Amino acid sequence: MGQIKNYITENKERFLNELVELLKIPSISADTAYTKDVIAAAKFVEKSLQEAGCDSTEICETKGYPVVYGEKIIDKNLPTVLVYGHYDVQPPDPVDLWDSPPFEPVIKKTELHPEGAIFARGSCDDKGQMYMHVKAAEFMIRNNELPCNVKFMIEGEEEVGSDSLAEFLEDHKEKLSNDIILISDTGMIANDVPSITTGLRGLSYVEVEVTGPNRDLHSGIYGGAVPNPINVLNKMIASLHDENNHITIKNFYDKVAEVSAEERAEMAKAPFNLEDYKKTLDIADVQGEAGYTTSERYSIRPTLDVNGIWGGYTGEGAKTVIASKAYAKISMRLVPHQDPDEITELFTAHFESIAPKGVKVKVTPHHGGLPYVTNMDSLGYKAAAKAYETTFGKTPIPERTGGSIPIVALFEQVLESKTILMGFGLDSDAIHSPNEHFGVWNYLKGIETIPYFYKYFTELSK
Amino acid sequence: MGQIKNYITENKERFLNELVELLKIPSISADTAYTKDVIAAAKFVEKSLQEAGCDSTEICETKGYPVVYGEKIIDKNLPTVLVYGHYDVQPPDPVDLWDSPPFEPVIKKTELHPEGAIFARGSCDDKGQMYMHVKAAEFMIRNNELPCNVKFMIEGEEEVGSDSLAEFLEDHKEKLSNDIILISDTGMIANDVPSITTGLRGLSYVEVEVTGPNRDLHSGIYGGAVPNPINVLNKMIASLHDENNHITIKNFYDKVAEVSAEERAEMAKAPFNLEDYKKTLDIADVQGEAGYTTSERYSIRPTLDVNGIWGGYTGEGAKTVIASKAYAKISMRLVPHQDPDEITELFTAHFESIAPKGVKVKVTPHHGGLPYVTNMDSLGYKAAAKAYETTFGKTPIPERTGGSIPIVALFEQVLESKTILMGFGLDSDAIHSPNEHFGVWNYLKGIETIPYFYKYFTELSK
Repeated sequence: MGQIKNYITENKERFLNELVELLKIPSISADTAYTKDVIAAAKFVEKSLQEAGCDSTEICETKGYPVVYGEKIIDKNLPTVLVYGHYDVQPPDPVDLWDSPPFEPVIKKTELHPEGAIFARGSCDDKGQMYMHVKAAEFMIRNNELPCNVKFMIEGEEEVGSDSLAEFLEDHKEKLSNDIILISDTGMIANDVPSITTGLRGLSYVEVEVTGPNRDLHSGIYGGAVPNPINVLNKMIASLHDENNHITIKNFYDKVAEVSAEERAEMAKAPFNLEDYKKTLDIADVQGEAGYTTSERYSIRPTLDVNGIWGGYTGEGAKTVIASKAYAKISMRLVPHQDPDEITELFTAHFESIAPKGVKVKVTPHHGGLPYVTNMDSLGYKAAAKAYETTFGKTPIPERTGGSIPIVALFEQVLESKTILMGFGLDSDAIHSPNEHFGVWNYLKGIETIPYFYKYFTELSK
Repeated sequence: MGQIKNYITENKERFLNELVELLKIPSISADTAYTKDVIAAAKFVEKSLQEAGCDSTEICETKGYPVVYGEKIIDKNLPTVLVYGHYDVQPPDPVDLWDSPPFEPVIKKTELHPEGAIFARGSCDDKGQMYMHVKAAEFMIRNNELPCNVKFMIEGEEEVGSDSLAEFLEDHKEKLSNDIILISDTGMIANDVPSITTGLRGLSYVEVEVTGPNRDLHSGIYGGAVPNPINVLNKMIASLHDENNHITIKNFYDKVAEVSAEERAEMAKAPFNLEDYKKTLDIADVQGEAGYTTSERYSIRPTLDVNGIWGGYTGEGAKTVIASKAYAKISMRLVPHQDPDEITELFTAHFESIAPKGVKVKVTPHHGGLPYVTNMDSLGYKAAAKAYETTFGKTPIPERTGGSIPIVALFEQVLESKTILMGFGLDSDAIHSPNEHFGVWNYLKGIETIPYFYKYFTELSK
C-alpha cells in the first residue's frame, strides 16, 4: 500500500476534476423536475466504476431511482467489502444564500481547509465521500494491491428515504453477499482528531396539514370567531415539547435505550467546546432537553424538529387573510430501540388527539429509518481504527452522531452484516445547507486511508 | 329620482361591461410587479369620472400610488358629498383555488345571487362598489338630478394601508372640504336585510422574523441541541393567547371600550344562525374569546390572527433541515379606543420579551388603522336609512363589523367630517379570498339607492 501516497500526488488534479464533473449534475432526488439529472449521475457513477477496473457493472432499475452496482472479485475465498454510497443530493435551497451556484463547483481556501475546499451541493454528502472509494479501488486494482473482493452499491434515493432499497436488498441478497459494509457518509471530529461513527439516530418524518374554514377568509370579518389553522397548528406544535423540552407524545420514550453513566462519561471525553459551538452558529444560547449535555442531545437522545412550515399569505406586503390550511414538515430523530413506524403511529395518534374540534388534521408519513449502533470489538471496527492510525498517526475516537443513515440498520437485517462508517467530512462542511463544501485534504486523505482498511480487514479475517 | 330605475334598465349592459373592463386590470398594490396595472386602473377611473360628467378630474401624485380626484360643483351654498373608494385590489393567491382566472371576470348564478354575480378579484372589494357611485353620479348629472355638490377621492393603496393618504388629506384639506363622506367598501347582512355599518375595527399589522443559527443546519447533526427558529416561533405565537383565547400581550386590553349590556342586547337582535355560519365555512366548531358570542367576537372585541407563516423547506418531498430563520405576518383587529401605534409597540415589546435567549427577534410594523364608530343620530345616517327604506322598503339594521377601513378615522381627524358606510356586498362574496364575486343585483341596487342618499341628505341639511 506504500505507493498510495505517490499515486495520489500523481493523480491529484484528475481526482479533483472528475469529482467536479460529477458535482455539476443537479441530482436532486426530492424534486421530480431533476429526474434526468439523477439518472445522468447514475450513469456517471457506473462509468467511473468501469474505469476504476471493476469486472462488471450494472445500473439496476428499481421502483424509484436505480442502484449502481459494480464488483471486482479476485478470489471467492477472500473476504468481500461492500461499499455503499449515494449519488443523489439534497435540494440546494435557499439558493440565494449560496456564495457560488450550488452546481458550479469552485475550490476556495477556508480557515478549516487551508488547502482549499470544493464548494458544491453534494461535495461532502455524499458524492465526494462516495467517490473517494471509487478512486481508492482504482489505486488498488491498477496496482495489484487489492487484497480482497470489492462490491459497490451506490443508490439515488438516500436523501428521500431510500424507499426502493429494502426491496432491492431482498431481491439481490446473493449478489450483495459480503463480510463487511463500508460507508463514508458521516463526518469526523476534526482533521487532527479522526473519529469513527459508532452510533446513528433513526428517523421518522411526517407532513401535517391543518384545515380550518373551507376557504381563505377576510381576517377583519372573521378574525377572532373562527379557528385560524395557522394559530391552531402553532399551538399544536408548541405543545409537542414541555417546559423541559421533553417530547410530550404519549409513549414516545417507552423504548428509548438509556445510556449508562459510564458510557456517557466515556463520550464526554470527546473534545467539545460549548462556547466555540455557540460562536460558530452565532447563537447566544443552546436549547434542548433538560438533564443532558449538548453533545448528548444530538447523539443519544431522540428529538423533534419542525423542518418546514407554511400557510396563508407569504408574499410581499400585507394581506389580511385567514388561511383555510396550514402545513408543516416535522422530523423526529430516534435512538436505539425506537421503531420509526411505531413512532410515526404514536405521533399521528397524538397529533390527531390534540386537534381542536374546529379543525381537520391530516398526517402523511414521508420516510423513516432505524437507529444503529456499531460494536467496537468487531473486526471491521478494529481494521478501520488501524487504518486511521496508519494515515493519521492517531487512534480514532468512537463517536455517536445525530444523523441518520436509515439503511445501515436495514443492511444488518437483510444482508446480516455489520457496517463501518468511515467519515472524512467535518460538521462545519455545511451539508444540507447553503455553501456545502468538502476539504481537498479530506478528500485525498480518505483515498489514502481506505486501502489500508482493506489491508487490515483482510489480515484480521485470516 | 324616479327615473333612476328606467335609467338602470336602459344602461344595465353598459354598466356591467364597463365594470368588467376595470376588473380585468390586475391592480395589486401589495406586489410591485403590478405597478403598471395599478396606474392603468387609476387612469381608467379618471376617464370614467370624466364620462360621468365631472367638471374637473385629476390624477394626484403621492409618495405611493396616486389618488384619483374628480368633482361636480353645482352651487357652493349646497352641501357637498365626498365619495371615497379604492381602485387597488388584494393579491389573488392562492390562484389555483379560483374556479376562473381572477382577472378574467365571468358572470355566474349562485344560490345567493340568482340574477348572477361577477367573479373577479376586486369585484366587490372595492372596484364594483366604488363604480356604483360613478354610475349613480352619471345618472344624476346627465338627468339634472344632482341635488348637491359631489367630489370623488379614489385611492390605490387601501389594501396596503393607505400609507400616502394622511399626507394627501393634509395637503388638500380645502379641495376635499365636504359635509359628509360616503363609502361603499363594507357589506350588508342579506339582500332582503339591508344594513348600515356603524362600527369598524382598527388594525395593527406586523411581520416578525425569528433567527436561530446563522445558517440552515442538518437536523440530524444539530437537531435537539440548537434553538430551531420554527419551533421557537410556534411557541411564541401559541403563547399570545391563553386557554380562554384572551390575548396575553401586556396592557393589550387597557383601553378597550367595553360595550354595555343594553347595546349587546340590541346587537344580538341582528339575524345570526350559528349552525348556518359553521355549515357555510364547513367547520365543526367556532373558536374565539371566552365570554362572547361569535358575532361579538368579530365586531366588538379585539383579536390577533396569524395571516401568514413560513420557514424551512416547503417544497416537494422531505428535507431534514433546521432553518436559520422563520417568519410570520400577524394582524390585530382593534376596537374603540385602542390606538394602532400603541398596540404595535405593546406587541413588539411583548414579543421581544418572550423570545428565548438563543434566538434573535425582529418585528416590522406593516400598517395600522384606528377603529371607528358612527353616530346613528347624524344627518348622514338618517339620510342613508331613508335611502334604503325607499329602495329596499325596509329600515336598515345598524351593524358593527369586524373589518377595518383605517382611513375612516383619519377623515374625521383631518377633514373633520363624518363618514357613512353604505355597503352592498355580502359576507359570502369572498372578498380577500379565491372566487371573490359581487351580485349583479347588488351592483344595480347600489346604483339605484345612492342617488336617494344625495336627495335626502340635501333635504335634511336645509
